[in-house]
Amino acid sequence: MLDNILKQVAEGNMSLEEAKKELATFENLGFAKVDHHRPKRQGFPEVIFGEGKTAQQIIEIAHSMLAKKVNILATRIEQEKAEIVKTSLPEFEYDPTSRTMILRNEEKPTILAGYIAVICAGTSDLPVTEEAAKTLEAFGIEVRRFYDVGVAGIHRLFNYIEEIQQATVSIVVAGMEGALPSVVGGLVSHPVIAVPTSVGYGANFQGLSALLTMLNSCASGISVVNIDNGFGGAYNAALIHRVANKIEN
Amino acid sequence: MLDNILKQVAEGNMSLEEAKKELATFENLGFAKVDHHRPKRQGFPEVIFGEGKTAQQIIEIAHSMLAKKVNILATRIEQEKAEIVKTSLPEFEYDPTSRTMILRNEEKPTILAGYIAVICAGTSDLPVTEEAAKTLEAFGIEVRRFYDVGVAGIHRLFNYIEEIQQATVSIVVAGMEGALPSVVGGLVSHPVIAVPTSVGYGANFQGLSALLTMLNSCASGISVVNIDNGFGGAYNAALIHRVANKIEN
Amino acid sequence: MLDNILKQVAEGNMSLEEAKKELATFENLGFAKVDHHRPKRQGFPEVIFGEGKTAQQIIEIAHSMLAKKVNILATRIEQEKAEIVKTSLPEFEYDPTSRTMILRNEEKPTILAGYIAVICAGTSDLPVTEEAAKTLEAFGIEVRRFYDVGVAGIHRLFNYIEEIQQATVSIVVAGMEGALPSVVGGLVSHPVIAVPTSVGYGANFQGLSALLTMLNSCASGISVVNIDNGFGGAYNAALIHRVANKIEN
Amino acid sequence: MLDNILKQVAEGNMSLEEAKKELATFENLGFAKVDHHRPKRQGFPEVIFGEGKTAQQIIEIAHSMLAKKVNILATRIEQEKAEIVKTSLPEFEYDPTSRTMILRNEEKPTILAGYIAVICAGTSDLPVTEEAAKTLEAFGIEVRRFYDVGVAGIHRLFNYIEEIQQATVSIVVAGMEGALPSVVGGLVSHPVIAVPTSVGYGANFQGLSALLTMLNSCASGISVVNIDNGFGGAYNAALIHRVANKIEN
Amino acid sequence: MLDNILKQVAEGNMSLEEAKKELATFENLGFAKVDHHRPKRQGFPEVIFGEGKTAQQIIEIAHSMLAKKVNILATRIEQEKAEIVKTSLPEFEYDPTSRTMILRNEEKPTILAGYIAVICAGTSDLPVTEEAAKTLEAFGIEVRRFYDVGVAGIHRLFNYIEEIQQATVSIVVAGMEGALPSVVGGLVSHPVIAVPTSVGYGANFQGLSALLTMLNSCASGISVVNIDNGFGGAYNAALIHRVANKIEN
Amino acid sequence: MLDNILKQVAEGNMSLEEAKKELATFENLGFAKVDHHRPKRQGFPEVIFGEGKTAQQIIEIAHSMLAKKVNILATRIEQEKAEIVKTSLPEFEYDPTSRTMILRNEEKPTILAGYIAVICAGTSDLPVTEEAAKTLEAFGIEVRRFYDVGVAGIHRLFNYIEEIQQATVSIVVAGMEGALPSVVGGLVSHPVIAVPTSVGYGANFQGLSALLTMLNSCASGISVVNIDNGFGGAYNAALIHRVANKIEN
Amino acid sequence: MLDNILKQVAEGNMSLEEAKKELATFENLGFAKVDHHRPKRQGFPEVIFGEGKTAQQIIEIAHSMLAKKVNILATRIEQEKAEIVKTSLPEFEYDPTSRTMILRNEEKPTILAGYIAVICAGTSDLPVTEEAAKTLEAFGIEVRRFYDVGVAGIHRLFNYIEEIQQATVSIVVAGMEGALPSVVGGLVSHPVIAVPTSVGYGANFQGLSALLTMLNSCASGISVVNIDNGFGGAYNAALIHRVANKIEN
Amino acid sequence: MLDNILKQVAEGNMSLEEAKKELATFENLGFAKVDHHRPKRQGFPEVIFGEGKTAQQIIEIAHSMLAKKVNILATRIEQEKAEIVKTSLPEFEYDPTSRTMILRNEEKPTILAGYIAVICAGTSDLPVTEEAAKTLEAFGIEVRRFYDVGVAGIHRLFNYIEEIQQATVSIVVAGMEGALPSVVGGLVSHPVIAVPTSVGYGANFQGLSALLTMLNSCASGISVVNIDNGFGGAYNAALIHRVANKIEN
Repeated sequence: MLDNILKQVAEGNMSLEEAKKELATFENLGFAKVDHHRPKRQGFPEVIFGEGKTAQQIIEIAHSMLAKKVNILATRIEQEKAEIVKTSLPEFEYDPTSRTMILRNEEKPTILAGYIAVICAGTSDLPVTEEAAKTLEAFGIEVRRFYDVGVAGIHRLFNYIEEIQQATVSIVVAGMEGALPSVVGGLVSHPVIAVPTSVGYGANFQGLSALLTMLNSCASGISVVNIDNGFGGAYNAALIHRVANKIEN
Repeated sequence: MLDNILKQVAEGNMSLEEAKKELATFENLGFAKVDHHRPKRQGFPEVIFGEGKTAQQIIEIAHSMLAKKVNILATRIEQEKAEIVKTSLPEFEYDPTSRTMILRNEEKPTILAGYIAVICAGTSDLPVTEEAAKTLEAFGIEVRRFYDVGVAGIHRLFNYIEEIQQATVSIVVAGMEGALPSVVGGLVSHPVIAVPTSVGYGANFQGLSALLTMLNSCASGISVVNIDNGFGGAYNAALIHRVANKIEN
Repeated sequence: MLDNILKQVAEGNMSLEEAKKELATFENLGFAKVDHHRPKRQGFPEVIFGEGKTAQQIIEIAHSMLAKKVNILATRIEQEKAEIVKTSLPEFEYDPTSRTMILRNEEKPTILAGYIAVICAGTSDLPVTEEAAKTLEAFGIEVRRFYDVGVAGIHRLFNYIEEIQQATVSIVVAGMEGALPSVVGGLVSHPVIAVPTSVGYGANFQGLSALLTMLNSCASGISVVNIDNGFGGAYNAALIHRVANKIEN
Repeated sequence: MLDNILKQVAEGNMSLEEAKKELATFENLGFAKVDHHRPKRQGFPEVIFGEGKTAQQIIEIAHSMLAKKVNILATRIEQEKAEIVKTSLPEFEYDPTSRTMILRNEEKPTILAGYIAVICAGTSDLPVTEEAAKTLEAFGIEVRRFYDVGVAGIHRLFNYIEEIQQATVSIVVAGMEGALPSVVGGLVSHPVIAVPTSVGYGANFQGLSALLTMLNSCASGISVVNIDNGFGGAYNAALIHRVANKIEN
Repeated sequence: MLDNILKQVAEGNMSLEEAKKELATFENLGFAKVDHHRPKRQGFPEVIFGEGKTAQQIIEIAHSMLAKKVNILATRIEQEKAEIVKTSLPEFEYDPTSRTMILRNEEKPTILAGYIAVICAGTSDLPVTEEAAKTLEAFGIEVRRFYDVGVAGIHRLFNYIEEIQQATVSIVVAGMEGALPSVVGGLVSHPVIAVPTSVGYGANFQGLSALLTMLNSCASGISVVNIDNGFGGAYNAALIHRVANKIEN
Repeated sequence: MLDNILKQVAEGNMSLEEAKKELATFENLGFAKVDHHRPKRQGFPEVIFGEGKTAQQIIEIAHSMLAKKVNILATRIEQEKAEIVKTSLPEFEYDPTSRTMILRNEEKPTILAGYIAVICAGTSDLPVTEEAAKTLEAFGIEVRRFYDVGVAGIHRLFNYIEEIQQATVSIVVAGMEGALPSVVGGLVSHPVIAVPTSVGYGANFQGLSALLTMLNSCASGISVVNIDNGFGGAYNAALIHRVANKIEN
Repeated sequence: MLDNILKQVAEGNMSLEEAKKELATFENLGFAKVDHHRPKRQGFPEVIFGEGKTAQQIIEIAHSMLAKKVNILATRIEQEKAEIVKTSLPEFEYDPTSRTMILRNEEKPTILAGYIAVICAGTSDLPVTEEAAKTLEAFGIEVRRFYDVGVAGIHRLFNYIEEIQQATVSIVVAGMEGALPSVVGGLVSHPVIAVPTSVGYGANFQGLSALLTMLNSCASGISVVNIDNGFGGAYNAALIHRVANKIEN
Repeated sequence: MLDNILKQVAEGNMSLEEAKKELATFENLGFAKVDHHRPKRQGFPEVIFGEGKTAQQIIEIAHSMLAKKVNILATRIEQEKAEIVKTSLPEFEYDPTSRTMILRNEEKPTILAGYIAVICAGTSDLPVTEEAAKTLEAFGIEVRRFYDVGVAGIHRLFNYIEEIQQATVSIVVAGMEGALPSVVGGLVSHPVIAVPTSVGYGANFQGLSALLTMLNSCASGISVVNIDNGFGGAYNAALIHRVANKIEN
């Protein structure tokens, strides 16, 4: 493309001003194309991180996205804020457990093969786990949920292990001692994304215990995201799932 | 006994000086009898914590114990130090893995029913695990070892789970993420003593990761001792095992 | 039992479908029997961890347990929530200090010999201490309470030391500097379960100070549970007490 | 397969003893097949974690693997230890930077499309980075190296950004402030595995600084492994790379 | 001046009492002159740290400053408190984002050459960033703002890099992983003041992550102030900017 | 004295130059007199902190002190270094346990009433404890030692409690869980200086455990110095002991 | 006294039952006399730690103390709680800054020579500082206050240094960086009690910064109490002040 | 320059290939020119961070720099390594205190007005302090040293305060409690760069105490670099000093 611009300049088909403008674009594209084009090319929806934003700000951002015809996902939205947003954009569906909102706006939905296993240790981990699951679904990826299968009753996990093994990637969410990803990691041969939660008390130190457990896992194939970062876990898994679907990106 | 002293004083069978001396003893016995008499009554051997003691100090302490006719256990003894001790007390057997020495000196060995399961996650945990096992054996308690059964290959544990379930108490030793006690705790109905080890690197922080995991275990029935404290885990387990044997102590 | 299934298949007394179903059960039983059967066999009541559960969820869980004819214990229940639960299940007794509720539903109460000593350092530790005591009582175990006997006035402890020494196991609860378990551990010859509390301020760091003190105790025979985990301490002690009662489990 | 065993038993073609043995295997296979079969099916070599193992132990393990006709990788091997191992197994090639040894023993090498970008911030990160790169190469995966492209001179990274963008996955290794993965994560649309190193001093706290930076990255698509865990980063990346190659596993 | 006092005493032109009083003053001036005279000489406004002060206290302090004819800046003032202050001193302008108030009272405004670049990573960092910017403006220094140019979309920064390079000093504000100062530090040749913010969650630990990142920066020329200390960053930058303007102070 | 200088100036008995010189001295004396004069007036010996100083530096410092006719104490001196120092200054007595050296050089020894109780929990605390004891003795204060009286065998302390209660101040040294000062503090009515030691392992974190215990003591009248700071504990106690002796300082 | 009891028993003047009862008392007195008798003998008032106690509990405790004719001090009492207490016990004076209440009830006030210097760095430290000052005054000790003399304007301290030097002991309270005790410690020759406060933000970590500063002080003669523990600092200082007054205790 | 390239292309004076090459250069220059050109333009010498580099690597790097005719500074060089380097490059001068080497190779030395004050608290801080001082001198900046003026004897600082106040910027180095920068910051009106050192023991935690103190300083105008980072402190100060000299950079 650089060749092309220069050639047109050389041939007098492009003014110097136009060339400068194009080259500026080109320079941006050199390292920045991902930022503006990535979501569209991947079919990933736009995502609004709701924490610290007012309902009004969320409404404005969402409106500016409507024209792009992709799904709009908003995370970390409290019930009250969601209701204000819905007065302006009633197409949003709100899920109180995951505190996510989605506005389905895709022109032609992505169809991807396979599914991602979303696994959690206990029912208290549900908000983070559902944030991950809803994010994946907003991205057009099939999710299979395996909830409340923590290590203190390990047989519960084994009931589902074959279905888990068939997934392209597993997201494993756990608070307290955070041991579940190690066990899952030893039973599957695909990548495992571990998400520590801040569920616990005392020497849990707001999720530090689960985080350290996951970073120190003796099972291979486990990588970790920030405490309570269900969205981040899902985003990682989605990238891997896409790769498995051989979509150019 | 207090009654008795006073009665003798009242009856003129004991001088005031003698009575004062006896009462001083009595006062000590009020809260201190355990200290001097406990090891003998329980058949537990004397234990020498070797860290920071010279070979010469260990020899002197051991000599002073010989008359008591109980086993003498020394922990945290480096090979070199052990060899010096053995030049003076060749009856000591040294085990380099657990860094323990034992001198068998019991007149009539204790015979206790049942056994304690000593379980560890990986081979790097062996020094701490064997410190626990050797301590129990020095205390005359049968040990069954289940080694290298960490959660990254959880089926290894299941091969032995019934034998583990028959123990009176389990000692579970693990470094890295320290998840094994949670899994064992969910599978047995006896008390589990969890021993974190400093095995690991990076975000392990010298055993902090395993320690926090164990303290935050979502399985009930697990209590924890200090990092690398194989002796302490064994001592706790031995007390419970004794209770199960209904020995008066 | 595996033998039996196979034999019936071989003899044509069991269809392949039935055998598969049974084997699935068997497989579960292999490592999971504890989970479903343990509470019943031990006479331990069902326990509901109330934190993060709504009154409605607690009511539903409790109703599903009623048929089992065991006591139902709920922990970490705030007063307000307890009152809602009681409108549906007035048989529950609520204790505001320990924030526990119990519904006595045992057909034939367990009768166990001996008692457990529940000891605490200061009156601020009462909520955690009473959580332990109420849990034990819900499990049908006799509790003897020794409260406000912290190390800053150590003679208070000595007044009761003989009664404490007769227990099968001691639970020692302490916040602030958490030194009490070390002192008790030096005076008794049975296992001590240490429970750190988050009582304190400043360099207490929400119970970290007491936790570290207990893990580093120079007295043997002490193991530790999570900060403020009165229930966990009681559960451990109950397992040991059962063992001392030679009940098969 | 379960059907088959039962059928043979029903038809008298299999003894009860044989059936029990088969069922035990089956049970193991239910959740453990990965462990024994995974490496072979994936063509991943066997890996020996050398830290804490003696040269003699490494030799024995390697010998027992020779028959399997897969590559043998050993990590965390000091020079001196490597030389002892090579006296017995001279086929091993030792790389002192990454402290890895490899013995090429594959019958028919895997051929996978694409490559993995291995990127590091500074030359001090080389040991960890090369551990990752050598691991991938031992797994039969093409590696492209982009070294010394840390954020303090960010233009160095941009020279290579297009080649990095073409990779299936990037491994980004950084010590000190650990900011490089965030920058790379903002420029690529494939998954990024971040590996913090303990390179630094003072408030680096042995890699804690880089670890926290990576966990808190504001770029999506980044997951993290333990400090200095080059092998773990590579293993994760290899799993993703396999998925991208649509190999059944 | 000391000479002068003594001379007058020697010549009888000053009483002993007066001399003692003067010498006391002199002694104070020896090391304390900065404190009372600095703000005036530098043209820096008086600054009131509002946190923990009541509206009434702020009003009183401000009134006592009015006579000095310098600007009065108050930081960390909540909206509600600001409104009370303004009922008494309506000349104050309040800015809710930065939570600062300023009362412009300078007789002859400072005119300084050049400008300071105030840069932040994300919109959540705005309160701290604007505290810095408003402080500089209150000090009579031109500010150029470069906001929302975090490392996850590094091209945004490059659009402005030349304008940033022309500043005398840069203040770089970032939360989350805090990587932006390292990148800026590698692109400019003037001093960079890094201000970590507490923006983030989980393993961010209230700004610890960003703080450590900045302290460990591999770019030279970066120094760091306390978490969320926008005022402190501005004060440092203002001192440097003054130095660059060769103003005697 | 200021009066005097000025008067002499006024009367022409002192030149301006002399007055300036005297006033400079006076100014220093205003806040610095303690530094130069304190040791002499208190009879406290000069103290050399040996850590990080060479034998040669220690010799030089000691030589420069000889003229002052006070005792010279050097702390944190390793055996080897001590021997070099003694080749030059054989009057030094070296104590390997406390790693202190003392050179007795007092013209007329201080005679103070009363004694200080120096108490330690275990034999591993001896180096720090003896550093405290030797420091006090070098300061001419009578020390009574109560060693190895830790809380795990609390009756050992009670044997000596009356003698401890008669002291003017207690220094209590403890590592591990550091509980001893709390117990002593509850039994005496004089000030207690608590000195945590780094004795311990695992979750001791190099003395952090003992330090936190002491800071959180529920006994009143306890203040704390740095980990392993036997000298600092002694210096504090000596100041208090002096006050009790009503010596003007 | 022991002699006396035994003698009476021997002479038949005391029954065995009476002797046992007396001996129990004696035993308690052996180590516990301080607890019950100390406050009275020292003239120190009874102190109620108000945190976590209800107004009703405080009223009850105070009523039970009225008969003893000593002052009653209550600390950590919020305004609202104080007002409820005063409805029952209007003699209490409440001070909202220090959150203390005092009820003056001494029959004959203690008269002690000398005073204690109470020094603080900034006005935000006032609540903790005044808790210390009010405690001392409740104990009948003269207090001299030196407030807002922090190290950022060190000349303010020097104005008062001679008056501070005349005190028997200094209590130095500081938050933020907590440097003031080091400076004071270098200027006085009496003991300094350092009280860190939780005043600050960001990397202050709720007082940890000031605490560490004080523990690491390079000035001798400084000992430290818990963060925000104004009462504890005062209690320590009071013990020292008493010793200086040669009162038998 | 971009205009120029395009114009030449348009006019046929530059081939497409040449234009592409130039544009690539241009792009690099857009944000990277600082990196390659900064040291030369500023007259700052090249700096080699010696930690983790072999003597041979240092020799090679230094040789490649010789042609540039600027001074070459190497930091963190142990004595032994220095001697090897000098066998190849005897022009290097080695300073064992600061562990720096300098090779003076400037064609025309920079002449800058003014000086920087380098201040340290104690003699143990000398290695870090001298690293700062030597770095500045290698950069051609006059240094004035004020050593051993820590807060425990604050009058030592006041002797030099006027000379310090005349500097353009102060570097203040301190370990232990790190309070010195706060005091200096309150006495000067120029920027202060605070450098914490790891000097200390116990609760110093390898410099954490001094680092936190400096970050929390209540004096304005202080910014902080990493623990023991004397070079970084000097580099920051040098940038400010240059600005004060109005040199274009």
